[in-house]
Amino acid sequence: GEPSGPCVKTTIPGPKSLQMIADLDKIQFAGSIFYFTDIKNSLGNYIVDADGNSILDLLTQISSLPLGYNHPDLLKVLQDPDNHIAFINRPALAIFPTQGWPEKLTSSLLSVAPKGHTQVTTMACGACSNENAFKSTFMWYRNKQRGGAPITDEEHSSCLVNKGPGSTPFTIMSFKGSFHGQTLACLTTTHSRSVFKLDFPALDWPIASFPRYKYPLEDHIKENEAEDRRCLAEVEEQFEIYNKAGKFVAGVVVEPIQAEGGDVHASPEFFRELQRITKKNGAALILDEVQTGGGATGKYWCHEHFNLPDPVDIVTFSKKMLTGGFYSLPEFRPQQGLKIFNTWMGDPTKVLLLEKVLQVVKRDNLLKMVELSGKKLMDGLKDLSRRFPQHMQNVRGIGTFCAFDSGSQQKRDETFFRLQQHGIQPGPCGEQTIRLRPSLVFQPKHADIFLDILEKVLKEI
Amino acid sequence: GEPSGPCVKTTIPGPKSLQMIADLDKIQFAGSIFYFTDIKNSLGNYIVDADGNSILDLLTQISSLPLGYNHPDLLKVLQDPDNHIAFINRPALAIFPTQGWPEKLTSSLLSVAPKGHTQVTTMACGACSNENAFKSTFMWYRNKQRGGAPITDEEHSSCLVNKGPGSTPFTIMSFKGSFHGQTLACLTTTHSRSVFKLDFPALDWPIASFPRYKYPLEDHIKENEAEDRRCLAEVEEQFEIYNKAGKFVAGVVVEPIQAEGGDVHASPEFFRELQRITKKNGAALILDEVQTGGGATGKYWCHEHFNLPDPVDIVTFSKKMLTGGFYSLPEFRPQQGLKIFNTWMGDPTKVLLLEKVLQVVKRDNLLKMVELSGKKLMDGLKDLSRRFPQHMQNVRGIGTFCAFDSGSQQKRDETFFRLQQHGIQPGPCGEQTIRLRPSLVFQPKHADIFLDILEKVLKEI
Ligand code: FES
Repeated sequence: GEPSGPCVKTTIPGPKSLQMIADLDKIQFAGSIFYFTDIKNSLGNYIVDADGNSILDLLTQISSLPLGYNHPDLLKVLQDPDNHIAFINRPALAIFPTQGWPEKLTSSLLSVAPKGHTQVTTMACGACSNENAFKSTFMWYRNKQRGGAPITDEEHSSCLVNKGPGSTPFTIMSFKGSFHGQTLACLTTTHSRSVFKLDFPALDWPIASFPRYKYPLEDHIKENEAEDRRCLAEVEEQFEIYNKAGKFVAGVVVEPIQAEGGDVHASPEFFRELQRITKKNGAALILDEVQTGGGATGKYWCHEHFNLPDPVDIVTFSKKMLTGGFYSLPEFRPQQGLKIFNTWMGDPTKVLLLEKVLQVVKRDNLLKMVELSGKKLMDGLKDLSRRFPQHMQNVRGIGTFCAFDSGSQQKRDETFFRLQQHGIQPGPCGEQTIRLRPSLVFQPKHADIFLDILEKVLKEI
Repeated sequence: GEPSGPCVKTTIPGPKSLQMIADLDKIQFAGSIFYFTDIKNSLGNYIVDADGNSILDLLTQISSLPLGYNHPDLLKVLQDPDNHIAFINRPALAIFPTQGWPEKLTSSLLSVAPKGHTQVTTMACGACSNENAFKSTFMWYRNKQRGGAPITDEEHSSCLVNKGPGSTPFTIMSFKGSFHGQTLACLTTTHSRSVFKLDFPALDWPIASFPRYKYPLEDHIKENEAEDRRCLAEVEEQFEIYNKAGKFVAGVVVEPIQAEGGDVHASPEFFRELQRITKKNGAALILDEVQTGGGATGKYWCHEHFNLPDPVDIVTFSKKMLTGGFYSLPEFRPQQGLKIFNTWMGDPTKVLLLEKVLQVVKRDNLLKMVELSGKKLMDGLKDLSRRFPQHMQNVRGIGTFCAFDSGSQQKRDETFFRLQQHGIQPGPCGEQTIRLRPSLVFQPKHADIFLDILEKVLKEI
């Protein structure tokens, strides 16, 4: 079974990890590695590193493990010989899908589709999910612009050499602080940290401010409402500037919570108003739920907390969903093959595993568990923040998707380092934030263990 | 065992496939599907479709199956319980790699590295492999430009809003007719067919002509040499134009054979001269071996046929390698973490399977087999082309990576359709080309079966 708590025997990373990092560094740059892992001995919420340290994992492979390590039900999927053939015969899904594929999509991805969504396209990671959401948006916008007119020869020939009218001047609006992936178009919409963007070319696409609230929220209602209005005015302004310049804004991409940029939350009202403004401008609203989706907020999709009046146009996912992809409204279907296309179009084995994950989530009521554990976490974090205001501020979260600030980058790094040495693996994000990204099997008792150690660390600093 | 030949019972696609296509079409656009497959009953070179037709597969999931269907050695990888944990615990490889990972890279990808390459980075598909090859090139070029000067605050802050100097005006040169993937930057370097590009924005990056030879080559030596010179002059010209305009050409991306654009071959001399010109201009040469790599040309990397004087700067791969990724010279290593980065950075289970594929290729001498089967194929195709010159022209190929033209798109489509109805699955490419992309277990006897049926089809037309 799972250990009853973290167990640390060496500094982290320990000598074995350091040796392995040196080995890997001969083959590729290894400077971002925290430590090597002993996956075989990892279980549930605990990751074991190469030096035998057992660490309570609140980062879970950058928020991508839905059921923790070595979940017995997932193991069963691999033990079933009928499933083995799927793993050794990867199909080109958009040309030669395997029989049973529509049923698999229905029993997995469509069974948790956001409200109003009947269409889903699989991809292999968050970046190609967003890139293809952008492409779907551009096609849709251009078709509206064409108004049924046929595609001209000039469009066909000009796009081959990257020129108009076939290549369009369309843009996607994004928000300061956002993160949408690290291919070049995704990077154009990413603004969280310069390390991701420096030295790379970027497209001239509009950018608006994302709200930055004062906490605790209940004490700053007026100011935060004004902050929403300021940002939404920028959105309107960017629409006007870019549309007037002929760089038509076909879509707006936004995270329900800016996860990489420091767990920056915005109000349901902000998102409702954003949807209204986007619609008014004839553009599509793309919700990037790559990190927020998959259950950690207590619902499958974070934006379900926002009570939006209309379904979102496109919702992208990856990470905890195991497969990348996106839901989109029917009007975003391509009118032709090969436009939303690549060799594999995802990987059916990831959907096979996802199907089992969703069964477990339902059977074990894991979204309810997220709610309970999340409440425990939030209550504990708020309490610690009141007691150690010099080390912890701006506690925020939905479900177990929680974060707090440390006051400075140096203090965050110290908190992070000390937690690690005590056998807690948190995640850093933004300038001075600690984010928590446990998997869906994180229980209230794990929250207690974490909170105890965090208190100890805060006393040490 | 494998069937002794194709066996067709229905039209292709048959009624069951048509029903499944209709089912899938309720969930997503299904217009590019050829037929649904019965993977369980597929074996070796034969794919079985949902209607029970057994088809000799010369397309192999868009050239992505190295060992055909249900290879017994790959099945063993799945049957080994020690391997199961890798499939259910996907790591974030650039932060928490699993112990043994450097050794796995060494025994798999590095064991077949192109000459001079010691560095490899895994990715998850061809598109992110190319996107990250471009990014590596931009960083390298910018660092040369900086000449050791520190990165300024202005660079950091400007890139966050997609502006210079932090965002660079750098470009990648590509060739008419090329295909490098379908994310937006990859699409900017793709020029094979308008369907891939229409309606999407593109960057202003330089494009040069790729040689278009007259066949048979031995009868057109002078003309083809002149064609090389014409294209290389365009490369020089594009360097000059873009560099002078400050849109510095940091790299040139090229396929060893333009595979999607119609199997367009260029001479070893062309590639050697291209390498010289690229180097002279301080740019990087990126060889996109996503489709040509993995053994189908009789060598692991098609560019090994070119006798280049220096190692290529970056070689990208995916498809038959099962994992995406790229080899790069040490000077292309990032100087900082998170720049060549994403959540998963590939998938160790694909490398586990690749390791076995490479063992089988070596044990069974499959590259030698490719050579033999390729010779048989080429001889047969050339013979048929002489006998049916109105239906088949410009036979070309290296190893089993073969193609021929049909004279017109309509004739190609007819040849393609009739081959399919006779139980042969070829691939279309370019305007009027049939491409052959069998896996590495394709034997001379399979070439015979294909050539017999092709002859029958050519007589029917
Ligand atoms: S871009 Fe998503 S897997 Fe390659």
